[in-house]
Amino acid sequence: MRALVLDQSLHMEMRYPNPTVPQDEALVRVRRAGICATDLQMIQGYMAFSGILGHEFVGVVEQATGREDLLGARVVGEINASCQHCSTCRAGRPTHCPNRTILGIHGRNGAFADYLCLPIRNLHVVPAAISDRQAIFIEPLAAACQILDQISVTPKQQVVVIGDGKLGLLCAQVLKTRTGQVAILGRHPEHLAILSAMGIATALRKEDLPGQADIVIEATGHPEGLMLAMQVVRPQGTIVLKSTYHGTAAINMTPCVVNELCLIGSRCGPFHKAIEMLQHQQVQVDPLYQAEYPLDRALDAIDCAGIPGSLKVVLNMET
Amino acid sequence: MRALVLDQSLHMEMRYPNPTVPQDEALVRVRRAGICATDLQMIQGYMAFSGILGHEFVGVVEQATGREDLLGARVVGEINASCQHCSTCRAGRPTHCPNRTILGIHGRNGAFADYLCLPIRNLHVVPAAISDRQAIFIEPLAAACQILDQISVTPKQQVVVIGDGKLGLLCAQVLKTRTGQVAILGRHPEHLAILSAMGIATALRKEDLPGQADIVIEATGHPEGLMLAMQVVRPQGTIVLKSTYHGTAAINMTPCVVNELCLIGSRCGPFHKAIEMLQHQQVQVDPLYQAEYPLDRALDAIDCAGIPGSLKVVLNMET
Repeated sequence: MRALVLDQSLHMEMRYPNPTVPQDEALVRVRRAGICATDLQMIQGYMAFSGILGHEFVGVVEQATGREDLLGARVVGEINASCQHCSTCRAGRPTHCPNRTILGIHGRNGAFADYLCLPIRNLHVVPAAISDRQAIFIEPLAAACQILDQISVTPKQQVVVIGDGKLGLLCAQVLKTRTGQVAILGRHPEHLAILSAMGIATALRKEDLPGQADIVIEATGHPEGLMLAMQVVRPQGTIVLKSTYHGTAAINMTPCVVNELCLIGSRCGPFHKAIEMLQHQQVQVDPLYQAEYPLDRALDAIDCAGIPGSLKVVLNMET
Repeated sequence: MRALVLDQSLHMEMRYPNPTVPQDEALVRVRRAGICATDLQMIQGYMAFSGILGHEFVGVVEQATGREDLLGARVVGEINASCQHCSTCRAGRPTHCPNRTILGIHGRNGAFADYLCLPIRNLHVVPAAISDRQAIFIEPLAAACQILDQISVTPKQQVVVIGDGKLGLLCAQVLKTRTGQVAILGRHPEHLAILSAMGIATALRKEDLPGQADIVIEATGHPEGLMLAMQVVRPQGTIVLKSTYHGTAAINMTPCVVNELCLIGSRCGPFHKAIEMLQHQQVQVDPLYQAEYPLDRALDAIDCAGIPGSLKVVLNMET
């Protein structure tokens, strides 16, 4: 099969071996896959990963032993494949299983290929109302929905999202389902315009934000985002951290102590909520689409995704 | 009056002007005052403060217009003097009032002197069962009690306190009132022995701690403490940050995101709870006492408090 492989270099392979399907796993023929900031960071060396990249996908089930009802179903998949046996799994935290593999990120080949494997329990059937191109957004949208599972947001609370990349744009929309007071601080007027059209306040400068925020979502992808978040949030307010990055940064945590802030790290989230939100059009992902490339041109797609200000770049395995 | 003053230098003044008592404030004759790590950091330049240092004290009310019932009462005092008018105060967060002064820390002369002033509402009468020397610990003990107001701790949760300085020793005891599973990681065998005698597990090396912690209290006073805390806490666990320090440090916050940790900054706390704990002997502070100096020898006392491993050094204004 075709695959975009990261090892010593990043390169396309046209005759990569088709996956052997482990027990309890499904074979999925990938139809489309999305390029995420994490993929770009991994190419820069964020994780010591060797294999096929990619973890945002929609595809069709071609093999699922014991669950033949899924054959031909259009699915998306949760990316953490946990062991189900360790104390972390038994404590109800399978996405933190220390033995887990992660699709296209850690110990498991990913979605930038014609086929992938995932445990059957990780799959979610995509309703017909959601297009392939929209389904690509289910994984990052679930990550945005995770915030609602971690903190309570009440209708009058002021939320500020910092960072107007793809994840920031999704987070702002998700938070908007809970409070009328959402503002986003970003650097790309064309991105902010997307949210402005949805009734979300936007700002290019910290000074233009509406007062002190009860909750700040830090989605800049840069360590500086946390310092900025600590300036924007009110005393005893909450900062949700969405940014991962490589290496250390010079940070002063004293404002967190003095202002008794609550910082919450937030990662993968509930797929069913993301699917529901898309199905009921509570969020709009079509404006976040940037470009589509055939899999054969995956390297060009990666270059396109790496252009500052680029939105979602999609690989199409069917062209 | 006598006063230990920090301005261009740190020095004793024997004829500092007695305070003029503002309306709604009490004049307190200080009997004893404790030296805190924050005082030592301020001498190193942590805050741009000029005036009399000191914020842990016990004293006797000599003037309290409208509250003559307090005359002669033995009191301790909350250190934040808020404006009571701003939106932060009205929102119920007076200890975070942006207009506040802080005893011996910001905009208000402190307790290393014969007299101090504080708003009458800041004062708490000390029960007879608590000695002067014990009362010195009410302010830092309240800071430890603040943790219980910020997070829920259940009887079977594993708590690890990192740092066996004065605040760490208090935090471990306070947490022990909620769960049987408290361990402390420190560098001073003689400090750990104090807690060991109280049935608290102790460790000099991270490897000797009991498994993964649900809750970690970071009380090292150093930025490295946070990195260590992130290694010790379980996924989706909680880290309470008690350390303030000067300047930035190289920190990688990615583990916080990947492991979905909750970091909570924690500062001043409820005096009434600290008084209750001392009164009912739920915590022991006598073993945390290091030495007592007359106020005239305050500079020697500061030197003594600055010796690594030093516990609570007290100034006695009555000798």
